[in-house]
Amino acid sequence: MKALVFDKRLKLVLDYPEPNLKEGEALIRVRYAGVCATDIEITKGYMGFKGVPGHEFSGVVEESGIPGLAGKRVTGEINLSCGECEYCRGGLRTHCPKRSVLGIYKKDGAFAEYLTLPVDNLHVLPDEVPDEEGVFAEPLAAAFEILSQMEIGRGSMVAVLGDGRLGILAAEVLRLTGCSLATIGRHEEKLAILKALGVKTLLGAEGVGRDFDIVVECTGRAEGLSTALKIVKPRGTVVLKTTIAERDGVDLNQAVIDEVTIMGSRCGPFKPAIAALKDGAVDVRPLVSRVFPLEEGIEAVSYASQKGVLKVLLKVE
Amino acid sequence: MKALVFDKRLKLVLDYPEPNLKEGEALIRVRYAGVCATDIEITKGYMGFKGVPGHEFSGVVEESGIPGLAGKRVTGEINLSCGECEYCRGGLRTHCPKRSVLGIYKKDGAFAEYLTLPVDNLHVLPDEVPDEEGVFAEPLAAAFEILSQMEIGRGSMVAVLGDGRLGILAAEVLRLTGCSLATIGRHEEKLAILKALGVKTLLGAEGVGRDFDIVVECTGRAEGLSTALKIVKPRGTVVLKTTIAERDGVDLNQAVIDEVTIMGSRCGPFKPAIAALKDGAVDVRPLVSRVFPLEEGIEAVSYASQKGVLKVLLKVE
Repeated sequence: MKALVFDKRLKLVLDYPEPNLKEGEALIRVRYAGVCATDIEITKGYMGFKGVPGHEFSGVVEESGIPGLAGKRVTGEINLSCGECEYCRGGLRTHCPKRSVLGIYKKDGAFAEYLTLPVDNLHVLPDEVPDEEGVFAEPLAAAFEILSQMEIGRGSMVAVLGDGRLGILAAEVLRLTGCSLATIGRHEEKLAILKALGVKTLLGAEGVGRDFDIVVECTGRAEGLSTALKIVKPRGTVVLKTTIAERDGVDLNQAVIDEVTIMGSRCGPFKPAIAALKDGAVDVRPLVSRVFPLEEGIEAVSYASQKGVLKVLLKVE
Repeated sequence: MKALVFDKRLKLVLDYPEPNLKEGEALIRVRYAGVCATDIEITKGYMGFKGVPGHEFSGVVEESGIPGLAGKRVTGEINLSCGECEYCRGGLRTHCPKRSVLGIYKKDGAFAEYLTLPVDNLHVLPDEVPDEEGVFAEPLAAAFEILSQMEIGRGSMVAVLGDGRLGILAAEVLRLTGCSLATIGRHEEKLAILKALGVKTLLGAEGVGRDFDIVVECTGRAEGLSTALKIVKPRGTVVLKTTIAERDGVDLNQAVIDEVTIMGSRCGPFKPAIAALKDGAVDVRPLVSRVFPLEEGIEAVSYASQKGVLKVLLKVE
């Protein structure tokens, strides 16, 4: 099959072996795959990954042990867990220490014609969610994870730091809580997407006071956490979403003095994400900057890392 | 009056002006003052402080507007807050943005014959708590702060990282919760104090797994947080107590991936601290390494920063 493969550098391979279907898994023909900041970091060496990157996808089940599943349009959760350890039994499958992760860690991903995933990881896409939007279930779930980790309501002063893909999705999700929300970014054209939804936006954090109960750090930049610590209130919370190959030293004394909580936040629940796509509570369409065919994947990843670009999709089938 | 004064370097001044008593304040004749890691950091430039350091003390009220207070043995809370802002009104006086801090920020401290503090900051020491132990109310309150920020009980697997002054106090306080506790340190003779109390101790973190729900970082060292992130469970909490003038870069990707919460923790409640000193729940006496007269304060601070030394006290009166 055709696949983008990373091994020191990213290349297009035309005869990459199709994945073997294991028990409990489904074979999925990929339709769309999304390029995420993590994919770009992987091409810089993050996680030391070798193989097929890509973990945001929509596709069609081609084969599985479950009657009636073949032919269904699906997307899927990316953590392949053991199902037996204390984390799996405790409902924290995404933290299984034996896990592999689709396109990120010990498991080939979605930048290919086919992928396999355990049937338990799959979510059928409702008719109202087209393939191009189903790709967003995974990053949108990561935004919903914030709400599963902490209570955010009408009284909360919340800032999203970063106007990239994840920042916009996080702001769209946080908007649903009725909190007092501001998004601080660096690109007027990206902030305009949120402005159109009625979200308060600020160009740059200069002059912003220590005003926020919660700051969601989605900049994907080394200095994002330092900025977050400057605008979060004492006893407030910084939700840390950014993972990057290299991070500068950050002065954490202020976090001690202000008793700030820094909360790492990663993969989240797919159900509310797919529901929000279905009922239109979150609109992901303005985020698609460009669609490339899989064959132009190297160019697509390079394009996705350019300034001003939001979501880049690969059209596989 | 005699005072230790820091201004680029620490010096003994014999004719430093006595502090002026403001409305609502008490004048206190210092009996003992404790040397804290923060004092040592101040002599390295932390907070850019100039003046009299020292924020752990016991003393006798010499003068105040409150009838009956003169002559009482007291210790005191170190944050001088405005009493009017949203933090003060919300019960978070230690986070008042207008605050000064005894011996740390814009307020002369306890390494002197006299200090002043608002009467509201004072706590009378019970007869059962001698002057030498009353000095420990402040750092012990900082240890109790952990319990005011999060629930720790019998089911919790807790590690204290660091066997210095604060590490030992934190372990002594956490022990009271009945949690499963281990203290990881670098000095057998310091760990022996905890061992004698029945606390499990480990020499070094090598080979320690990702086993702890909660890790309390009290190392006072740049690499402490990195070690904490290596031994805390996914979805666990690192309580960050260390403030240091310089901190190395720390890889926070693992905190995002494991959705770890890093919680800054500073000053705490004096009431449970003084109660624990009174009823002997916490024993601070083994922590006193040496007592110096105020006149030998420069030597005392230098001695306090040596390897293997625990609490150094200044005897002022």
